[in-house]
Amino acid sequence: MTTQHAVDEVDVRQRIDTLLAAVRGGDLDTLKTMFAPDLVSFDIEPPLRHLGAEAKWRNWENVFAAYQAPLGYEVRDLTVMVNGDLAVVYSLNRISGTLRSGVPSDTWVRWTACLRKIDGTWLIVHDQVSVPVDFPTGTALLDLEP
Amino acid sequence: MTTQHAVDEVDVRQRIDTLLAAVRGGDLDTLKTMFAPDLVSFDIEPPLRHLGAEAKWRNWENVFAAYQAPLGYEVRDLTVMVNGDLAVVYSLNRISGTLRSGVPSDTWVRWTACLRKIDGTWLIVHDQVSVPVDFPTGTALLDLEP
Repeated sequence: MTTQHAVDEVDVRQRIDTLLAAVRGGDLDTLKTMFAPDLVSFDIEPPLRHLGAEAKWRNWENVFAAYQAPLGYEVRDLTVMVNGDLAVVYSLNRISGTLRSGVPSDTWVRWTACLRKIDGTWLIVHDQVSVPVDFPTGTALLDLEP
Repeated sequence: MTTQHAVDEVDVRQRIDTLLAAVRGGDLDTLKTMFAPDLVSFDIEPPLRHLGAEAKWRNWENVFAAYQAPLGYEVRDLTVMVNGDLAVVYSLNRISGTLRSGVPSDTWVRWTACLRKIDGTWLIVHDQVSVPVDFPTGTALLDLEP
Protein backbone atom coordinates (compact mmCIF):
# COMPACT_ATOMS: atom_id res chain seq x y z
CA MET A 1 0.00 0.00 0.00
CA THR A 2 2.75 2.43 0.96
CA THR A 3 4.77 1.38 -2.07
CA GLN A 4 1.77 1.82 -4.39
CA HIS A 5 1.16 5.22 -2.84
CA ALA A 6 4.73 6.29 -3.60
CA VAL A 7 4.44 4.98 -7.17
CA ASP A 8 1.19 6.92 -7.64
CA GLU A 9 2.72 10.16 -6.38
CA VAL A 10 5.64 9.75 -8.78
CA ASP A 11 3.17 9.06 -11.60
CA VAL A 12 1.18 12.20 -10.81
CA ARG A 13 4.32 14.34 -10.65
CA GLN A 14 5.42 12.95 -14.01
CA ARG A 15 2.03 13.84 -15.48
CA ILE A 16 2.43 17.41 -14.23
CA ASP A 17 5.93 17.53 -15.76
CA THR A 18 4.39 16.41 -19.06
CA LEU A 19 1.79 19.18 -18.81
CA LEU A 20 4.46 21.81 -18.10
CA ALA A 21 6.61 20.72 -21.04
CA ALA A 22 3.53 20.80 -23.29
CA VAL A 23 2.65 24.34 -22.19
CA ARG A 24 6.21 25.59 -22.66
CA GLY A 25 6.37 23.99 -26.11
CA GLY A 26 2.92 25.09 -27.22
CA ASP A 27 2.18 21.38 -27.75
CA LEU A 28 -1.61 21.25 -27.79
CA ASP A 29 -1.74 17.57 -28.83
CA THR A 30 0.07 16.50 -25.65
CA LEU A 31 -1.93 18.94 -23.51
CA LYS A 32 -5.14 17.33 -24.76
CA THR A 33 -4.08 13.99 -23.22
CA MET A 34 -4.16 15.56 -19.74
CA PHE A 35 -7.88 16.23 -19.36
CA ALA A 36 -10.84 13.92 -18.67
CA PRO A 37 -13.69 14.33 -21.18
CA ASP A 38 -16.10 15.55 -18.48
CA LEU A 39 -13.62 17.99 -16.87
CA VAL A 40 -15.10 20.93 -14.96
CA SER A 41 -12.67 23.87 -15.01
CA PHE A 42 -12.95 27.04 -12.93
CA ASP A 43 -10.53 28.75 -15.30
CA ILE A 44 -9.03 32.23 -15.03
CA GLU A 45 -11.21 33.68 -17.78
CA PRO A 46 -15.03 33.74 -17.79
CA PRO A 47 -17.52 32.07 -17.59
CA LEU A 48 -17.58 30.87 -13.96
CA ARG A 49 -17.14 27.28 -15.10
CA HIS A 50 -15.94 25.66 -18.31
CA LEU A 51 -17.54 22.28 -18.99
CA GLY A 52 -15.72 19.51 -20.89
CA ALA A 53 -12.19 18.94 -22.11
CA GLU A 54 -12.78 20.73 -25.41
CA ALA A 55 -13.51 23.99 -23.59
CA LYS A 56 -10.19 23.61 -21.76
CA TRP A 57 -8.32 22.93 -25.00
CA ARG A 58 -9.75 26.14 -26.47
CA ASN A 59 -8.57 28.09 -23.42
CA TRP A 60 -5.03 26.85 -23.96
CA GLU A 61 -5.27 27.56 -27.69
CA ASN A 62 -6.18 31.13 -26.75
CA VAL A 63 -3.12 31.38 -24.48
CA PHE A 64 -0.84 30.10 -27.24
CA ALA A 65 -2.45 32.56 -29.67
CA ALA A 66 -1.90 35.47 -27.28
CA TYR A 67 1.84 34.88 -26.70
CA GLN A 68 4.89 34.68 -28.91
CA ALA A 69 6.69 31.33 -28.52
CA PRO A 70 8.27 30.14 -26.34
CA LEU A 71 6.08 30.54 -23.29
CA GLY A 72 7.58 30.56 -19.78
CA TYR A 73 5.72 28.31 -17.33
CA GLU A 74 7.19 27.85 -13.86
CA VAL A 75 5.58 25.83 -11.08
CA ARG A 76 6.54 26.66 -7.50
CA ASP A 77 5.88 24.62 -4.34
CA LEU A 78 3.92 21.84 -6.02
CA THR A 79 2.03 19.90 -3.35
CA VAL A 80 0.76 16.44 -4.32
CA MET A 81 -1.73 14.38 -2.28
CA VAL A 82 -2.74 10.93 -3.49
CA ASN A 83 -5.06 8.23 -2.18
CA GLY A 84 -6.01 5.32 -4.44
CA ASP A 85 -7.36 6.69 -7.73
CA LEU A 86 -7.79 10.26 -6.41
CA ALA A 87 -5.12 12.97 -6.39
CA VAL A 88 -5.00 16.69 -5.61
CA VAL A 89 -2.19 19.01 -6.64
CA TYR A 90 -1.72 22.71 -6.04
CA SER A 91 1.01 25.24 -6.72
CA LEU A 92 1.81 28.82 -7.69
CA ASN A 93 2.39 29.00 -11.43
CA ARG A 94 4.18 31.79 -13.25
CA ILE A 95 3.22 32.30 -16.88
CA SER A 96 5.52 34.69 -18.66
CA GLY A 97 6.56 35.74 -22.11
CA THR A 98 5.96 38.32 -24.78
CA LEU A 99 2.48 38.93 -26.12
CA ARG A 100 1.93 38.97 -29.91
CA SER A 101 1.60 42.74 -29.52
CA GLY A 102 5.21 42.87 -28.31
CA VAL A 103 4.28 43.71 -24.72
CA PRO A 104 5.99 41.60 -22.02
CA SER A 105 3.67 39.71 -19.68
CA ASP A 106 4.46 38.02 -16.37
CA THR A 107 1.72 36.75 -14.04
CA TRP A 108 1.62 34.41 -11.05
CA VAL A 109 -1.58 32.39 -10.76
CA ARG A 110 -2.82 29.95 -8.12
CA TRP A 111 -3.52 26.47 -9.50
CA THR A 112 -5.44 23.63 -7.86
CA ALA A 113 -6.18 20.44 -9.82
CA CYS A 114 -7.95 17.19 -9.02
CA LEU A 115 -6.92 14.07 -10.92
CA ARG A 116 -8.46 10.62 -11.25
CA LYS A 117 -6.65 7.47 -12.37
CA ILE A 118 -8.87 6.32 -15.21
CA ASP A 119 -7.93 3.09 -17.05
CA GLY A 120 -4.42 3.41 -15.64
CA THR A 121 -3.85 7.05 -16.62
CA TRP A 122 -4.05 10.10 -14.37
CA LEU A 123 -6.40 12.68 -15.90
CA ILE A 124 -7.41 16.12 -14.64
CA VAL A 125 -11.12 16.03 -13.81
CA HIS A 126 -11.30 19.47 -12.18
CA ASP A 127 -9.14 22.53 -11.80
CA GLN A 128 -9.24 26.11 -10.62
CA VAL A 129 -6.92 28.90 -11.81
CA SER A 130 -7.06 32.42 -10.39
CA VAL A 131 -5.52 35.58 -9.04
CA PRO A 132 -6.79 37.40 -5.95
CA VAL A 133 -9.19 40.34 -6.07
CA ASP A 134 -8.62 43.85 -4.73
CA PHE A 135 -12.17 44.51 -3.50
CA PRO A 136 -11.92 48.29 -3.02
CA THR A 137 -11.15 48.76 -6.72
CA GLY A 138 -12.60 45.55 -8.24
CA THR A 139 -9.20 44.90 -9.80
CA ALA A 140 -7.81 41.45 -10.60
CA LEU A 141 -4.32 41.37 -9.04
CA LEU A 142 -2.25 40.17 -11.99
CA ASP A 143 1.11 41.48 -10.71
CA LEU A 144 1.44 39.78 -7.31
CA GLU A 145 4.58 37.77 -6.52
CA PRO A 146 4.99 34.94 -4.01
CA MET B 1 -14.93 -0.68 0.92
CA THR B 2 -17.92 0.58 -1.05
CA THR B 3 -19.90 0.98 2.16
CA GLN B 4 -17.05 2.89 3.81
CA HIS B 5 -16.78 5.06 0.73
CA ALA B 6 -20.49 5.96 0.95
CA VAL B 7 -20.15 6.70 4.67
CA ASP B 8 -17.17 8.95 3.99
CA GLU B 9 -19.03 10.89 1.30
CA VAL B 10 -21.95 11.45 3.67
CA ASP B 11 -19.50 12.59 6.36
CA VAL B 12 -17.86 15.09 4.01
CA ARG B 13 -21.23 16.47 2.89
CA GLN B 14 -22.26 16.86 6.53
CA ARG B 15 -19.06 18.77 7.23
CA ILE B 16 -19.83 21.12 4.34
CA ASP B 17 -23.36 21.60 5.72
CA THR B 18 -21.81 22.50 9.08
CA LEU B 19 -19.55 25.03 7.37
CA LEU B 20 -22.48 26.61 5.49
CA ALA B 21 -24.55 26.93 8.65
CA ALA B 22 -21.60 28.50 10.46
CA VAL B 23 -21.09 31.05 7.67
CA ARG B 24 -24.78 31.94 7.55
CA GLY B 25 -24.87 32.32 11.33
CA GLY B 26 -21.60 34.22 11.61
CA ASP B 27 -20.46 31.41 13.93
CA LEU B 28 -16.69 31.77 13.93
CA ASP B 29 -16.16 29.18 16.68
CA THR B 30 -17.72 26.43 14.56
CA LEU B 31 -15.97 27.66 11.40
CA LYS B 32 -12.63 27.30 13.19
CA THR B 33 -13.24 23.54 13.61
CA MET B 34 -13.24 23.11 9.80
CA PHE B 35 -9.61 23.92 9.02
CA ALA B 36 -6.40 21.95 9.49
CA PRO B 37 -3.69 23.89 11.37
CA ASP B 38 -1.36 23.85 8.34
CA LEU B 39 -4.03 24.81 5.80
CA VAL B 40 -2.86 26.54 2.62
CA SER B 41 -5.60 28.77 1.23
CA PHE B 42 -5.63 30.45 -2.17
CA ASP B 43 -8.31 32.83 -0.94
CA ILE B 44 -10.18 35.48 -2.90
CA GLU B 45 -8.27 38.39 -1.34
CA PRO B 46 -4.49 38.90 -1.47
CA PRO B 47 -1.83 37.67 -0.90
CA LEU B 48 -1.51 34.79 -3.39
CA ARG B 49 -1.57 32.27 -0.54
CA HIS B 50 -2.67 32.37 3.07
CA LEU B 51 -0.72 30.01 5.33
CA GLY B 52 -2.26 28.41 8.41
CA ALA B 53 -5.74 28.12 9.87
CA GLU B 54 -5.48 31.40 11.76
CA ALA B 55 -5.06 33.35 8.52
CA LYS B 56 -8.25 31.70 7.25
CA TRP B 57 -10.13 32.56 10.45
CA ARG B 58 -9.12 36.20 10.02
CA ASN B 59 -10.43 36.18 6.44
CA TRP B 60 -13.84 34.97 7.66
CA GLU B 61 -13.78 37.53 10.50
CA ASN B 62 -13.25 40.19 7.83
CA VAL B 63 -16.25 38.89 5.86
CA PHE B 64 -18.45 38.94 8.96
CA ALA B 65 -17.21 42.46 9.75
CA ALA B 66 -18.02 43.67 6.23
CA TYR B 67 -21.65 42.43 6.15
CA GLN B 68 -24.73 43.04 8.25
CA ALA B 69 -26.09 39.76 9.67
CA PRO B 70 -27.47 37.47 8.44
CA LEU B 71 -25.24 36.52 5.55
CA GLY B 72 -26.62 34.57 2.58
CA TYR B 73 -24.43 31.62 1.54
CA GLU B 74 -25.73 29.28 -1.15
CA VAL B 75 -23.80 26.33 -2.56
CA ARG B 76 -24.77 25.11 -6.02
CA ASP B 77 -23.78 21.83 -7.71
CA LEU B 78 -21.56 20.55 -4.92
CA THR B 79 -19.37 17.74 -6.29
CA VAL B 80 -17.73 15.44 -3.73
CA MET B 81 -14.96 12.94 -4.53
CA VAL B 82 -13.59 10.72 -1.76
CA ASN B 83 -10.95 8.03 -1.58
CA GLY B 84 -9.73 6.81 1.80
CA ASP B 85 -8.65 9.81 3.89
CA LEU B 86 -8.59 12.23 0.93
CA ALA B 87 -11.55 14.23 -0.39
CA VAL B 88 -12.09 16.98 -2.94
CA VAL B 89 -15.18 19.14 -3.15
CA TYR B 90 -16.06 21.94 -5.54
CA SER B 91 -19.07 24.13 -6.15
CA LEU B 92 -20.31 27.58 -7.12
CA ASN B 93 -21.04 29.58 -3.97
CA ARG B 94 -23.20 32.68 -3.77
CA ILE B 95 -22.41 35.07 -0.97
CA SER B 96 -25.03 37.76 -0.55
CA GLY B 97 -26.29 40.29 1.91
CA THR B 98 -26.08 43.91 2.88
CA LEU B 99 -22.74 45.51 3.60
CA ARG B 100 -22.31 47.54 6.82
CA SER B 101 -22.41 50.60 4.56
CA GLY B 102 -25.97 49.67 3.57
CA VAL B 103 -25.02 48.68 0.02
CA PRO B 104 -26.40 45.31 -1.17
CA SER B 105 -23.78 42.76 -2.30
CA ASP B 106 -24.29 39.54 -4.25
CA THR B 107 -21.35 37.60 -5.71
CA TRP B 108 -20.89 34.08 -7.09
CA VAL B 109 -17.46 32.59 -6.42
CA ARG B 110 -15.86 29.31 -7.46
CA TRP B 111 -14.81 27.12 -4.53
CA THR B 112 -12.52 24.09 -4.55
CA ALA B 113 -11.48 22.46 -1.27
CA CYS B 114 -9.32 19.49 -0.37
CA LEU B 115 -10.04 17.67 2.90
CA ARG B 116 -8.14 15.07 4.88
CA LYS B 117 -9.59 12.74 7.50
CA ILE B 118 -7.33 13.47 10.48
CA ASP B 119 -7.94 11.55 13.72
CA GLY B 120 -11.43 10.69 12.46
CA THR B 121 -12.46 14.23 11.48
CA TRP B 122 -12.54 15.71 7.98
CA LEU B 123 -10.55 18.97 7.90
CA ILE B 124 -9.93 21.38 5.04
CA VAL B 125 -6.20 21.31 4.25
CA HIS B 126 -6.36 23.44 1.08
CA ASP B 127 -8.86 25.60 -0.73
CA GLN B 128 -9.13 28.06 -3.56
CA VAL B 129 -11.79 30.76 -3.90
CA SER B 130 -12.02 33.06 -6.91
CA VAL B 131 -13.88 34.88 -9.64
CA PRO B 132 -12.72 35.01 -13.27
CA VAL B 133 -10.67 37.86 -14.74
CA ASP B 134 -11.60 40.10 -17.67
CA PHE B 135 -8.13 40.45 -19.17
CA PRO B 136 -8.78 43.41 -21.52
CA THR B 137 -9.72 45.60 -18.54
CA GLY B 138 -7.97 43.79 -15.64
CA THR B 139 -11.31 43.64 -13.86
CA ALA B 140 -12.33 40.95 -11.38
CA LEU B 141 -15.73 39.69 -12.56
CA LEU B 142 -17.74 39.93 -9.34
CA ASP B 143 -21.18 40.01 -11.00
CA LEU B 144 -21.22 36.78 -13.05
CA GLU B 145 -24.07 34.29 -12.57
CA PRO B 146 -24.08 30.56 -13.29
